[in-house]
Amino acid sequence: MNLNLYGLGPKGQERWIMVDCGVTFGGPNEPGIDLITPDITFIKQQRDRLLALVLTHAHEDHIGAIGMLWEELQCPIYATPFTALMVEAKLRERGLPTSQVHRIKTGQTIRIGDFDIRYMAITHSIPESHLLGIATPLGAVVHTGDWKFDPDPVIGSVSDMDGFKDFAEKNNILAMVCDSTNAITPGRSGSERAVADELKDVVAGIKGRAIVTTFASNAARVKAIFQAAQANQREIVLVGRSMHKIVDAARGCGYLAGLPSPVPEEDAGFLPPEHTLILCTGSQGEGRAALGKMADGTHPFISLSSRDTVIFSSKIIPGNEKTVFGLFNRLSAKGVRIITEKHANIHVSGHPCAEELSDMYKIIQPKLAIPVHGEVMHMMTHASIAYEANVPAALVPSNGMMIELAPNLGEVLEHVDAGRLYVDGYLMERAGESAADDRRRLTFAGCVFVCVVYDERAVESFYLTGRGVPQALLDDHHDGFYQAVVAVLSNFDNKLPGASVIGEHVRQAIRRQFKSLWGKKPLVDVHMLEKKELFR
Amino acid sequence: MNLNLYGLGPKGQERWIMVDCGVTFGGPNEPGIDLITPDITFIKQQRDRLLALVLTHAHEDHIGAIGMLWEELQCPIYATPFTALMVEAKLRERGLPTSQVHRIKTGQTIRIGDFDIRYMAITHSIPESHLLGIATPLGAVVHTGDWKFDPDPVIGSVSDMDGFKDFAEKNNILAMVCDSTNAITPGRSGSERAVADELKDVVAGIKGRAIVTTFASNAARVKAIFQAAQANQREIVLVGRSMHKIVDAARGCGYLAGLPSPVPEEDAGFLPPEHTLILCTGSQGEGRAALGKMADGTHPFISLSSRDTVIFSSKIIPGNEKTVFGLFNRLSAKGVRIITEKHANIHVSGHPCAEELSDMYKIIQPKLAIPVHGEVMHMMTHASIAYEANVPAALVPSNGMMIELAPNLGEVLEHVDAGRLYVDGYLMERAGESAADDRRRLTFAGCVFVCVVYDERAVESFYLTGRGVPQALLDDHHDGFYQAVVAVLSNFDNKLPGASVIGEHVRQAIRRQFKSLWGKKPLVDVHMLEKKELFR
Repeated sequence: MNLNLYGLGPKGQERWIMVDCGVTFGGPNEPGIDLITPDITFIKQQRDRLLALVLTHAHEDHIGAIGMLWEELQCPIYATPFTALMVEAKLRERGLPTSQVHRIKTGQTIRIGDFDIRYMAITHSIPESHLLGIATPLGAVVHTGDWKFDPDPVIGSVSDMDGFKDFAEKNNILAMVCDSTNAITPGRSGSERAVADELKDVVAGIKGRAIVTTFASNAARVKAIFQAAQANQREIVLVGRSMHKIVDAARGCGYLAGLPSPVPEEDAGFLPPEHTLILCTGSQGEGRAALGKMADGTHPFISLSSRDTVIFSSKIIPGNEKTVFGLFNRLSAKGVRIITEKHANIHVSGHPCAEELSDMYKIIQPKLAIPVHGEVMHMMTHASIAYEANVPAALVPSNGMMIELAPNLGEVLEHVDAGRLYVDGYLMERAGESAADDRRRLTFAGCVFVCVVYDERAVESFYLTGRGVPQALLDDHHDGFYQAVVAVLSNFDNKLPGASVIGEHVRQAIRRQFKSLWGKKPLVDVHMLEKKELFR
Repeated sequence: MNLNLYGLGPKGQERWIMVDCGVTFGGPNEPGIDLITPDITFIKQQRDRLLALVLTHAHEDHIGAIGMLWEELQCPIYATPFTALMVEAKLRERGLPTSQVHRIKTGQTIRIGDFDIRYMAITHSIPESHLLGIATPLGAVVHTGDWKFDPDPVIGSVSDMDGFKDFAEKNNILAMVCDSTNAITPGRSGSERAVADELKDVVAGIKGRAIVTTFASNAARVKAIFQAAQANQREIVLVGRSMHKIVDAARGCGYLAGLPSPVPEEDAGFLPPEHTLILCTGSQGEGRAALGKMADGTHPFISLSSRDTVIFSSKIIPGNEKTVFGLFNRLSAKGVRIITEKHANIHVSGHPCAEELSDMYKIIQPKLAIPVHGEVMHMMTHASIAYEANVPAALVPSNGMMIELAPNLGEVLEHVDAGRLYVDGYLMERAGESAADDRRRLTFAGCVFVCVVYDERAVESFYLTGRGVPQALLDDHHDGFYQAVVAVLSNFDNKLPGASVIGEHVRQAIRRQFKSLWGKKPLVDVHMLEKKELFR
């Protein structure tokens, strides 16, 4: 989830540009949440001084939140054609206007307020990824976006090394804000070309049907798989919505010129297996993705058997291991042969490893390294790499940290509000005070609801139900819970307090009862209803 | 979670022996569940014919359920001294008698009913692991338990290759039931000796304090870490309850003879850093384990800083990646240096890789391979390895599958009840019909409780509360929910149905309302209370 703000001007009168505006995905700690966006409260409060949203490339973690936060942004967007196509599709899906999307060219410098922003080609796992050289009257910043050094990226241009050098020479580079994803991995990330060649060979070795899955967003890989199909006289079948989206955008920008058109998925079953290559989504074991449905036998057109081979041209994203292994198991149970990056060189990362980072620092030579895009361990290692490359200072930021770059380089000015918003159904809620947080609490011991109608010290009606609590407890100890409520009412001396005070006593008595019977305390909600209230 | 049953005799009159009785751990799919045991309903129903529980080795996934299921087992237990010590400690913790635990010796053959069981030493990551040769009048089975081929296991004896050969030659080996954990990994698993040597070197290279974490159950590794401390003139400090347990058991069996005694953890802070090695639990990022507390700064005696190095002599168990990376991040944020198996050869698996499996099949030459202990993908690959090693048949079993070995080798007789029991607080519940299953359902959209007091078609009192549902929805749309209930009551023609029928209509109306407002339907419980019932 990437979003950076660069400001220029005296405090309270800054002009801002935003670089990227992405999403991330929820996991077990965000139960029921698929998508998470940045909380943009800070910039919302000064939207009139937000000059533009500048996009480095089209990955979801860099553009995915634009549609959802559009009402609060409504600023000009700058992007190169492929990225622009993807963003416009996103806006259109939500019925939003696309008139603010401005197309620019790789290599171009755009002036936005006092910011001169130079878009320089850099290789990554999607076409049209850019390193931004952001020059201002007070000095310049290099914002790398996501990148790697790939001498043959299969799709799009190679990194504009001359441009980087030129920008670094002509400007006073205060800081470089740089990708940390693979900082803890030594060496180099490897080339998409090597993967493309290996994919051809791997497909050549398959006798029956070939099913290949990869990240749909990796357009270079998608192209390599088209080429592997073509080289092996196999028709290509695309399955999965996001696979169609990326192929449409890549075709729209001419990146798949000369490659054959896919066969519709409903015809997949009629092709001879040895002349079929199915390219599908679902490499992370997502149950609703194409490969997940095939593994479960619920796909309408494609059913798998022991004559099929599934190639995972992907890696397991950390946190998805159990889900992916689950998919492997379902495929194995059908006798499907599985080929992963452990068996052949069919995946490389799109992010720089330690040597690439070091090379980049030697080219740019910033005064300050600001590692971003990674967990703390990656950013800390990244900082060490920067120091080793003779960068005089490195600062590992936390989310919301406002860092002065000029005149006082590297001073932390303040921490602004920069949380996360959970997309929960139609609503967006702030992490930490959301229903998802409440659901996380429910996972330990569930919840219980108690309704008591009382008349002075007499319990007239008692109802107790639970969710996520052992049913046997509720059934076997109903009377015990009832007696606990009776005891609460009879234990008040003199005058009875109000319903809410009684309710709190009941709540605690019920929780104690659960603790002693179960060893765990569910969340308990109590509704106390005074009988005479019903006759007001 | 390992539990195998071997039966002998006509159907309904079999005599059974049980091999191992372990636990597994709950994950995100079993919310609120730490431990899972086998559901032993099948054997419980014929406990009088359960002759014995025979244990291969002392790992939790092989002995961890004995205490919890003891009431239903209560049969003789056979184990070698180290395993017996660990099991007795488990029973004592629960106030259970240990008189049924019988100590046997490695190499010994014990006769239990018509079963002749030969305990043969095999290497693994804990001392006293055994391959069982189970001979019966109808033929023999080899049950490998957990194993690897390690020429120098650091602790305990090497594998009894002569014994294996001898048993295989003298018996008609119907089947081998064998560990699949690493079947998908080519090559060999490597030796504990190489790890021990590397650990010495890694510790030698550390300037400040060395903190080493590993699986407490890996007694060989624990011994190697003691040796690394001794070789580098460092005092050893043990932190974590299970670390103390294993060291006590290993010492009790003489496996740590000649090594120095640990310094109490409360004195750790007084030792010179360069003469300190802290051996602690928590390699999987468990928040409540020793290393987790140190990373959080909540450990009473040990606080970490940038002068410390933490060595993970362990691997990340699949599914724990996020938790372990979280720990790495917390350590990195303190400036702690981290060394893992990616940086040095400081971990090897205790399970056989493909070549070791192949070697074992060539020694034992069973008529049937039965891969166990692994996911489907591991067992399927294991089966292929067996075929390649000229085993005539392989059968990948599912849990509860009853396989005939004689006279009809490899016939699947039936599938018996063989589920999982969730240990939920003080209760044990069957997976699939448990409170944890209900809690998993709560994670998507929470739950709502509705209480309505009604008098004919009039709503006299309306109460709605939710857990895991956006509070804004409940606050902003309270009246809308109320109106939905009013509408339900007024929509009944003629005579009102009973409270439960009305309640079901209310439930569906409330769910529809949530769906339209939120896009998600929470679980809804409704309590309908007829006013006149309060005056009966």
